[in-house]
Amino acid sequence: MRLIYCCGVVLLLTLFSRVSHGGNILVFPIEGSHWVNMDVLLRALHSKGHNITIVRNSKSWYVKENSTYYHSITVPVERSLGEEMITDLISTMIDFERGALPVTSFFNMAVGMMGTFIEAHRIISEFASAMFDDQELLRKLKDSNFDLVLTDPCWGHGIILAKYLNLPLVYNVRWLIAGEAHFSLAPSPLSYIPITGTGNTDKMTFLQRVKNVMVYLIGQTQHHIMVSQTYQKLCEKYLGPNSDFNELSLSADLWLMRVDFVFEYPRPTMPNFVYMGGFQCTPAKPLPQHLEDFVQSSGEHGVILMSMGAFVSALPADMTNEIAAAFAKLPQKVIWRHKGDRPANLGNNTLLVDWMPQNDLLGHPKMKLFIAHGGTNGVQEALYHGIPVVGIPLFFDQYDNLMRLKDRGGAQILTIHSLDKDNNFLKAVEEVLNDPSYRMNMQRLSRLHRDQPMKPLDNALFWMEFVMRHKGAAHLRTESYRMPWYSYYSVDVGLFLFGVFLLVLTTVFILMRCLYRTVCKPKVKQE
Amino acid sequence: MRLIYCCGVVLLLTLFSRVSHGGNILVFPIEGSHWVNMDVLLRALHSKGHNITIVRNSKSWYVKENSTYYHSITVPVERSLGEEMITDLISTMIDFERGALPVTSFFNMAVGMMGTFIEAHRIISEFASAMFDDQELLRKLKDSNFDLVLTDPCWGHGIILAKYLNLPLVYNVRWLIAGEAHFSLAPSPLSYIPITGTGNTDKMTFLQRVKNVMVYLIGQTQHHIMVSQTYQKLCEKYLGPNSDFNELSLSADLWLMRVDFVFEYPRPTMPNFVYMGGFQCTPAKPLPQHLEDFVQSSGEHGVILMSMGAFVSALPADMTNEIAAAFAKLPQKVIWRHKGDRPANLGNNTLLVDWMPQNDLLGHPKMKLFIAHGGTNGVQEALYHGIPVVGIPLFFDQYDNLMRLKDRGGAQILTIHSLDKDNNFLKAVEEVLNDPSYRMNMQRLSRLHRDQPMKPLDNALFWMEFVMRHKGAAHLRTESYRMPWYSYYSVDVGLFLFGVFLLVLTTVFILMRCLYRTVCKPKVKQE
Repeated sequence: MRLIYCCGVVLLLTLFSRVSHGGNILVFPIEGSHWVNMDVLLRALHSKGHNITIVRNSKSWYVKENSTYYHSITVPVERSLGEEMITDLISTMIDFERGALPVTSFFNMAVGMMGTFIEAHRIISEFASAMFDDQELLRKLKDSNFDLVLTDPCWGHGIILAKYLNLPLVYNVRWLIAGEAHFSLAPSPLSYIPITGTGNTDKMTFLQRVKNVMVYLIGQTQHHIMVSQTYQKLCEKYLGPNSDFNELSLSADLWLMRVDFVFEYPRPTMPNFVYMGGFQCTPAKPLPQHLEDFVQSSGEHGVILMSMGAFVSALPADMTNEIAAAFAKLPQKVIWRHKGDRPANLGNNTLLVDWMPQNDLLGHPKMKLFIAHGGTNGVQEALYHGIPVVGIPLFFDQYDNLMRLKDRGGAQILTIHSLDKDNNFLKAVEEVLNDPSYRMNMQRLSRLHRDQPMKPLDNALFWMEFVMRHKGAAHLRTESYRMPWYSYYSVDVGLFLFGVFLLVLTTVFILMRCLYRTVCKPKVKQE
Repeated sequence: MRLIYCCGVVLLLTLFSRVSHGGNILVFPIEGSHWVNMDVLLRALHSKGHNITIVRNSKSWYVKENSTYYHSITVPVERSLGEEMITDLISTMIDFERGALPVTSFFNMAVGMMGTFIEAHRIISEFASAMFDDQELLRKLKDSNFDLVLTDPCWGHGIILAKYLNLPLVYNVRWLIAGEAHFSLAPSPLSYIPITGTGNTDKMTFLQRVKNVMVYLIGQTQHHIMVSQTYQKLCEKYLGPNSDFNELSLSADLWLMRVDFVFEYPRPTMPNFVYMGGFQCTPAKPLPQHLEDFVQSSGEHGVILMSMGAFVSALPADMTNEIAAAFAKLPQKVIWRHKGDRPANLGNNTLLVDWMPQNDLLGHPKMKLFIAHGGTNGVQEALYHGIPVVGIPLFFDQYDNLMRLKDRGGAQILTIHSLDKDNNFLKAVEEVLNDPSYRMNMQRLSRLHRDQPMKPLDNALFWMEFVMRHKGAAHLRTESYRMPWYSYYSVDVGLFLFGVFLLVLTTVFILMRCLYRTVCKPKVKQE
């Protein structure tokens, strides 16, 4: 039954791709916030006439089977990365951070989530195996004549399938298994490029540089363990014994990076990297009437928006109460995305919502402050609209994302550990609201971010179409990652030249000794 | 008199800049082919309403005093880099290469031209000193409120003046004193990035990598000698004893690179690099009637264009005769830019010209082959129009430029050394004319080059205006070059971590020995 369904879908889209003049794109998306931004790209590709096919698993949670703008191929799986897995992890992290020991985000990144990550990659591997064991599905994918594979390489299954189908590969990317994407491909000196998880900026003290190197080494170890446990095995099984997953993952034609150099510190990059940070941002559209009325009722004081991202619908009750109490003391109106129980001490100025049009609210003239967890999407939206931030990071890259705003004078950061102590929350919110420098700095960043020759989304679309027109982008891609490390770092050449130097030195020494003996010794004898 | 003149000019342009809405740009150009491409940028800036002031010396040879699109400030000098200096150098190089020993371009780059280079930088230093010693001129420059300094950092005087005036600095650049510009700023592994002067590609054998490292080391030594002999002294005299020229030269806000990644091999780059290769190329305009008639008379065979660049107006007579004889045997028509005596054996199919509209000829549908010396401008024009090349490199980067076309199957290279032996010239020309792969490869490169989201010139203009709007581009610029080398390469961190490792190892060893003594020794005693 599944086979017939798959055949039907594939036949349909093959026909469709022949009819349309657009490209034929195979997509391997990721769930959660990663889907939120992939979705923006896919809608834009669809509106330009491209035909989109998504491979999803049968327990997919964000990626729906039916859509008006993509076809889907569903691979049946036993288990999937469920919402529970993430929310459990978040609860653990919150408990962890509020415990006796105030652990840093470094510790979280390095140790706290390792087990969860390995488990997640295993679940993804099962999905990949189910797909690669289905010969009929693979044959149909081959026959569909896709023009490229678009994937988020945070999980590795799309990379392996692109190689299996011999198709150009495009990344919608920030992370590559266990490291930042540009760090993996471009030479990146650890002395001025902060590793995510350290909370460092691009100007580091000696001890910060020590931490940077250590976190890098831990990250590389994690990467090695995760890849060898999962994707390397898949590669050897389905692509042949000599295939190397790391090599494959670095061989993508185009890397659409979800950051820009207003958010990210300047650093080396490669010609096949396109920085599309903020591609999801658009000028604000009008708000629904009830929200507009609420916002307007704030008068001259303006509005505060609070959202802790896709996963954190409810914080622990005591923390929620602390936040509600602080909000009640403010003259501003507050819109708070909160799914848990209504705090008893909620002020009249605070509106709880399940969902809200975040981009349109951030772009509203009355918006004064964004209280956020620091996910890349939200931080880039704050940058685009020039709204100052109070950040409450939980895990992953959130602390480091917020650090980039704080370092430029646009944000304050609160840790879960100290949020409910000494009125810290209220103090931070009032500080950012009342000191105009935060807003001025974010407005300056916003001007820099918006001052680009092309909109980031248009640029990303151009380069995806470029890859389709030219069947890849080999001329923009180095293959230096295929060299053995001693060649890459010229260690062999260095040893060779040192050897030659020694040889020359020895020869000169011997010659001089001979010369001395033939010229001076006879004299001595004569004497 | 000179002072009054300068004051007048500066006053005029200060007024002018107040009236116009464009920016106010101070330019330090370079003579020869470097002026040819700077001129393209300046005309484009002028047409966008920007006010341009050029600092030239009184013996300037390419940069005229009067122009419809720029103002000029003339600094009186005793001597200048004259045409004779370059043509003498070329004659020497040709004699050199045709001598008994066939020397490679590596030798030319490394040793042959060192003396000329140092002398040239000294002449530039004299120009700079004359400018910095003129207090009145400096005061007027300060009062002119320029928005940025645009210079070609091949010579260093513009860099020092930008610092003196505290202005944002933009480079129209390929070379930085003695090295390729992106090599100087971006981390560039010598294992896959060919050093100009080696004739290497991005795929090197072991011995080619050895050569690459050696030429790099020689280049760095040359750079050090040239900078310390000239610009470092100027810096210390006019900017203060602690100023460092190398640091200054790497601190530019924007680097407009005169190459692109169709010509150049993929390599690491930096966020403040804009690749504008081919910015001077435009679709062909109609030819003057006499040229059009000549071109059309070629019928189905088409036309060959030969030009050896701005400096080489005449090759040695025997070589010229060899070339003329070869041309006479071809069915094509030939347009030959040649200023010397008319070769006696010139065929009826060959037209000698003093000057010709090179871009319009290369873009003509009847153009079949470009015989060129391999300067960057000409090579980028051949790429743009998709015309295959027979290259006769003389010095500098010319061999390496042509190598990039040859490596992609679009060119043949002849050395001066072997040009007039065994009919080599005729063979190479016929090979490229008759094998369609050369043209197909150049056409493919042309398609890649032209497939950009923006025209390179528009992109360059956008980023120059960006620097003016935001008073620089600090957020795109790392300051990593200010770190001491042991910090930049994390040598100090490595040693520290190794020390900690040794300490831990020693402690563990001592503890285990103590444990052994307290646990095992008593047993031995008991026994």
